[in-house]
Amino acid sequence: MAILSEVATEVLIPIAAVIGIAFSLAQWIIVSRVKLTPSPPGASRSKDGYGDSLIEEEEGLNDHNVVAKCSEIQTAIAEGATSFLFTEYQYVGVFMSIFAVVIFLFLGSVEGFSTKTHPCTYSKDRECKPALFNALFSTVSFVLGAVTSVVSGYLGMKIATYANARTTLEARKGVGKAFITAFRSGSVMGFLLASNGLLVLYITINLFKIYYGDDWEGLFESITGYGLGGSSMALFGRVGGGIYTKAADVGADLVGKVERNIPEDDPRNPAVIADNVGDNVGDIAGMGSDLFGSYAESSCAALVVASISSFGVNHDFTGMCFPLLVSSMGIIVCLITTLFATDFFEIKAVKEIEPALKKQLIISTALMTVGIALVSWLALPYKFTIFNFGEQKEVTNWGLFLCVSIGLWAGLIIGFVTEYYTSNAYSPVQDVADACRTGAATNVIFGLALGYKSVIIPIFAISIGIYVSFTIAAMYGIAVAALGMLSTIATGLSIDAYGPISDNAGGIAEMAGMSHRIRERTDALDAAGNTTAAIGKGFAIGSAALVSLALFGAFVSRAGVKVVDVLSPKVIIGLVVGAMLPYWFSAMTMKSVGSAALKMVEEVRRQFNTIPGLMEGTGKPDYANCVKISTDASIKEMIPPGALVMLTPLIVGTFFGVQTLSGVLAGALVSGVQVAISASNTGGAWDNAKKYIEAGASEHARSLGPKGSDCHKAAVIGDTIGDPLKDTSGPSLNILIKLMAVESLVFAPFFATHGGLLFKLF
Amino acid sequence: MAILSEVATEVLIPIAAVIGIAFSLAQWIIVSRVKLTPSPPGASRSKDGYGDSLIEEEEGLNDHNVVAKCSEIQTAIAEGATSFLFTEYQYVGVFMSIFAVVIFLFLGSVEGFSTKTHPCTYSKDRECKPALFNALFSTVSFVLGAVTSVVSGYLGMKIATYANARTTLEARKGVGKAFITAFRSGSVMGFLLASNGLLVLYITINLFKIYYGDDWEGLFESITGYGLGGSSMALFGRVGGGIYTKAADVGADLVGKVERNIPEDDPRNPAVIADNVGDNVGDIAGMGSDLFGSYAESSCAALVVASISSFGVNHDFTGMCFPLLVSSMGIIVCLITTLFATDFFEIKAVKEIEPALKKQLIISTALMTVGIALVSWLALPYKFTIFNFGEQKEVTNWGLFLCVSIGLWAGLIIGFVTEYYTSNAYSPVQDVADACRTGAATNVIFGLALGYKSVIIPIFAISIGIYVSFTIAAMYGIAVAALGMLSTIATGLSIDAYGPISDNAGGIAEMAGMSHRIRERTDALDAAGNTTAAIGKGFAIGSAALVSLALFGAFVSRAGVKVVDVLSPKVIIGLVVGAMLPYWFSAMTMKSVGSAALKMVEEVRRQFNTIPGLMEGTGKPDYANCVKISTDASIKEMIPPGALVMLTPLIVGTFFGVQTLSGVLAGALVSGVQVAISASNTGGAWDNAKKYIEAGASEHARSLGPKGSDCHKAAVIGDTIGDPLKDTSGPSLNILIKLMAVESLVFAPFFATHGGLLFKLF
Repeated sequence: MAILSEVATEVLIPIAAVIGIAFSLAQWIIVSRVKLTPSPPGASRSKDGYGDSLIEEEEGLNDHNVVAKCSEIQTAIAEGATSFLFTEYQYVGVFMSIFAVVIFLFLGSVEGFSTKTHPCTYSKDRECKPALFNALFSTVSFVLGAVTSVVSGYLGMKIATYANARTTLEARKGVGKAFITAFRSGSVMGFLLASNGLLVLYITINLFKIYYGDDWEGLFESITGYGLGGSSMALFGRVGGGIYTKAADVGADLVGKVERNIPEDDPRNPAVIADNVGDNVGDIAGMGSDLFGSYAESSCAALVVASISSFGVNHDFTGMCFPLLVSSMGIIVCLITTLFATDFFEIKAVKEIEPALKKQLIISTALMTVGIALVSWLALPYKFTIFNFGEQKEVTNWGLFLCVSIGLWAGLIIGFVTEYYTSNAYSPVQDVADACRTGAATNVIFGLALGYKSVIIPIFAISIGIYVSFTIAAMYGIAVAALGMLSTIATGLSIDAYGPISDNAGGIAEMAGMSHRIRERTDALDAAGNTTAAIGKGFAIGSAALVSLALFGAFVSRAGVKVVDVLSPKVIIGLVVGAMLPYWFSAMTMKSVGSAALKMVEEVRRQFNTIPGLMEGTGKPDYANCVKISTDASIKEMIPPGALVMLTPLIVGTFFGVQTLSGVLAGALVSGVQVAISASNTGGAWDNAKKYIEAGASEHARSLGPKGSDCHKAAVIGDTIGDPLKDTSGPSLNILIKLMAVESLVFAPFFATHGGLLFKLF
Repeated sequence: MAILSEVATEVLIPIAAVIGIAFSLAQWIIVSRVKLTPSPPGASRSKDGYGDSLIEEEEGLNDHNVVAKCSEIQTAIAEGATSFLFTEYQYVGVFMSIFAVVIFLFLGSVEGFSTKTHPCTYSKDRECKPALFNALFSTVSFVLGAVTSVVSGYLGMKIATYANARTTLEARKGVGKAFITAFRSGSVMGFLLASNGLLVLYITINLFKIYYGDDWEGLFESITGYGLGGSSMALFGRVGGGIYTKAADVGADLVGKVERNIPEDDPRNPAVIADNVGDNVGDIAGMGSDLFGSYAESSCAALVVASISSFGVNHDFTGMCFPLLVSSMGIIVCLITTLFATDFFEIKAVKEIEPALKKQLIISTALMTVGIALVSWLALPYKFTIFNFGEQKEVTNWGLFLCVSIGLWAGLIIGFVTEYYTSNAYSPVQDVADACRTGAATNVIFGLALGYKSVIIPIFAISIGIYVSFTIAAMYGIAVAALGMLSTIATGLSIDAYGPISDNAGGIAEMAGMSHRIRERTDALDAAGNTTAAIGKGFAIGSAALVSLALFGAFVSRAGVKVVDVLSPKVIIGLVVGAMLPYWFSAMTMKSVGSAALKMVEEVRRQFNTIPGLMEGTGKPDYANCVKISTDASIKEMIPPGALVMLTPLIVGTFFGVQTLSGVLAGALVSGVQVAISASNTGGAWDNAKKYIEAGASEHARSLGPKGSDCHKAAVIGDTIGDPLKDTSGPSLNILIKLMAVESLVFAPFFATHGGLLFKLF
């Protein structure tokens, strides 16, 4: 048996979660020390009111008005974001309620709503709870997952909109201070999400256990609803937020930059607030929900496979909780890692930012490897068996250690490859920038080729991860590999959230009319954030691939499928159609961004034409109307792609059965990963190729610039094309492949019993 | 038993082939009546030398000089194309020789180069020939396939370059005359290819039978080399030709149209001949080799499955030859169909061209359905059995009729959907054109979305085709469904070849300095050709999907694989990596076009800068050097993508074994089809969106134009991006998926015996 006792497990997991939450609160308190209200006139000797701490004074600008202005803009952004999220949650709430009823009815009907217990499938000597109650508890955990996802996204947005003006103000004191403020704020979100997700899952398991008692099969089957709830919310968050942010961004740029020739984030542009709101609802709330969904799903996939393996059959609670213990260890490791960025070292110059962020990834991965070894040694018996499609497979604890670690390190490789292809420090992006010499067309051709090429190494990394973990511990191995990749999620999210916060800080500096030196500092923070955002997307996609494969494995196990044979017509048509779904979905989301952007263009044009004195800065634009247009358009446009993803498994499972559904899941997985990686990297490369020309940091870059040159114009076209690819279609595809898999898993008993109507008829 | 006797089968197939060849010769004779030499001065009363047949006289232009000039340009194009093809064939010849040795050695080693016979696998009572001789005959049929493919591509190119100036000259007499000349020339190629492919295959089977005698398993296994040879050549033809044509096209446009502001096809542009050569080597020779490859492969796939079904086991030669009889019937049907375009009706106005071409597709499909019914009734016994991965499945003749027909009609549906998404007569392309209002970026976003969306219906059509034919007759059903789609190949190729011929005719008119009225007529021919080219690509991709699935089925049958289980780590990593290959391949080909185009840009710039009087029309450009640059670049650049496709099955099969290879084939198939369809249609849509604005045929179109407006410039950017997508990457992907499958099939015995080294070691 394992060294760690059941009681110790019961205690350690909530302790880790509570430490994480306490740590994020501590970070939040530090951030909140930056005051957004001007100091009272008498309290300070100097005009700026900040005394010695202000390194560079900027006369005439750096006064009470600037602080008040920053505060005002931040409030406007926060209000816009809150209002969007509330509207979104209202609509999605209706959908989720209906879906909750569907879950209850479908799963309840498996045994005709009977309330009789029956012998368990894998532990024949035990009595399992009736399907009706599994349906009920699945519905409850579905709702819990959705609520946790909402809370995660909402809290992330709140923190980001709390931190952005503070980062702007700290930028007056130097780039190091601004970096730490942005990074600390990011880590508030990272740790809150990771700890919150773990805690809710842990409490749910313990509460459900009161009813389920001995029936662990039923218990962990019901828990899968948690993953489905989290991922469904994430889908709408990502798609809705993605359409919102890019509609506002593209709309603001097309009128502001192109037609009216005013700079980005200029306060005269009516869509400027909507654009900044978009960063918070798309990149922050959407990404938060997305990664929380991945985390919840990989935990659920691991738990459901473990429940029918020796852990579940022998009631080894510590072994059962291995996935949660890995996540607990992850919180502690990430906490230590964060201190390296905020306390052990100090950033002094712009060029230290990117290495500092990269070091976070390397340190957390190295420490976590030790952490995983520790958990594997303490929490696992030396030998145990894992369910492998009908038979039990023997696994050792060091084998499982290898599975988790390979996932973790595959994530790091994907991160670095993504960086290589999207950072303008390396030749791929520089080649794309160089192709701008012969115009936008060659820029786009080279960018598309770069995206396609960037798929190769990540796919090999994922494949090796799959092969090793699958061979060692079947689908459980893949689930824990996914968990390994996500174990440093707190650090990953901190870095991810840092990007949009810096982006917003720059926007606020511009809108508050602060000097260009402040703007230069926030731009430097933002440029580093761009690359880390691409790395974050790489992680999200890589983990989504592993998670959805693990969920797929759990689905076939639960549906009683033993073989998914490509040489069967039912499976092959599923594969072909499944591989098509990412294209259908991308067509919808890209066209949605296009249409929503066109609406925004009309409104911005209308305001410039009808509001007197707007261009001169004497009239005030109607920001709220632009926010409303983005909100309405994205709410309306997110429904068709959302419905496609949510309904496909239900329709295929009900009418074509589990074999075709297996094919669809596998097809969507293998095709979606490629589309997602290439779309994200192509978009990231175009964005940074443009930034490369703008920054003009090298001889080569200067030969292509400056801003406004033909090369730069060609680069801007590429950047605009990349917007929906990298921020809407690409990242939403993660959720497509995960969500269809987890939904199939939850509905597996129904499909296995009543599915395949069409083939039964003919 | 079947109604048709063995003797009748033996006679009817070559008769059909000879009729096809005779028909194409007759068409060729009619085309050759248009003289390219000016009539002797005394023979004619009027100045133009054509007497009454010339409907419109164009004074001052329409004289001996024009005819001589056309002839001169045609000769230059023909010489360039011939020289490229010879260079290409030399390099590919070396590669093919090496590969022939590899085939012999690999297959010979299966039984250690033993010369002993052994009992057959499926007909246990018969003695089968030794593996060494199978290796030898496979090598011979590989070489035959390659040579036939070379001849097909070369003849196509010859005919096209023979016909283009003749089409230009006929355009002086009216659009109807020009159309008939172009269409007749296309049909020379269509019928030659279809008949030639059938005849060589038929003769090869009969010659091999002399050695093999009773051993039909070995006979038809060796015949699969024919498909591999055809497809390998097609790969290099498509990729090399595709890079050639787009490098010349993009290079000529970037300097000529953009920098020097001279019209397309202007004789002062040094790359203009290379551009026109490109149409002939890429679109004509490449497409010819491609479709010949598909035809050869689907026949081989059907034959090899039939040889281990009741046809082969019972030695039912007529049943065995069912695929060849379907193709024979196809030649006759297409012959009748062609008469509808050339003899039964006459084109009088521009707007009649597109309907006339579409009618060709509908008529041939309708007639062929009757033809298939006839062949199924005459050549098949009422009941027979088909090998289905280890067991025999009973099939009826009308069931097989259904399989062939569903392929045929699925092809028509794909054709019409492609037309809907790429013709500027419908809203999708008009929406893309409209998106040019807000610039190139929205044009590209809408175009990409269109391409993604255009995948949906073709995939459903293919899936239904797969499901029905697979359910009725396992992999044999899919092979004959593919044959059904390709049964009207003669008509399909006629229509396809018609496009580039018209395109070249327009180029020659421009270069010969003919009036813009002539150019308007050839442009109208060309516009119709654009849509039919897209339809042709749709057919090519759809049939490639079915063909490669059939080959995949034949491969697993031959390798003795009974199950390809997605729930096995070996298969799933194959699937993931296989789905990545189309991206890797596209990255290579797109970047190749980009680099080759840049080289062309440099050379064209150099000539404009160093040759005195070039811009004024007094100096003569060095066309040959541009032709050489395009040739060298494309020869060099075609090797890496070619090697990727040719080596992948060998490496995967040898080191990872047949299970992983099955995964790779399935992954490449399901992912490649989507990439190919979306790339072709996106490119086609951008091209026609540009043409829509240029033609200005409607109120809406005129509001976007005219030529040179901002909208038009945005449309030109889209068109240039689409060039490598629709003419290089997209269509080459067909060959990727087919070729990897047929190569696996040929090497199946080797992989089954010696494959999977890596997994054997660990």
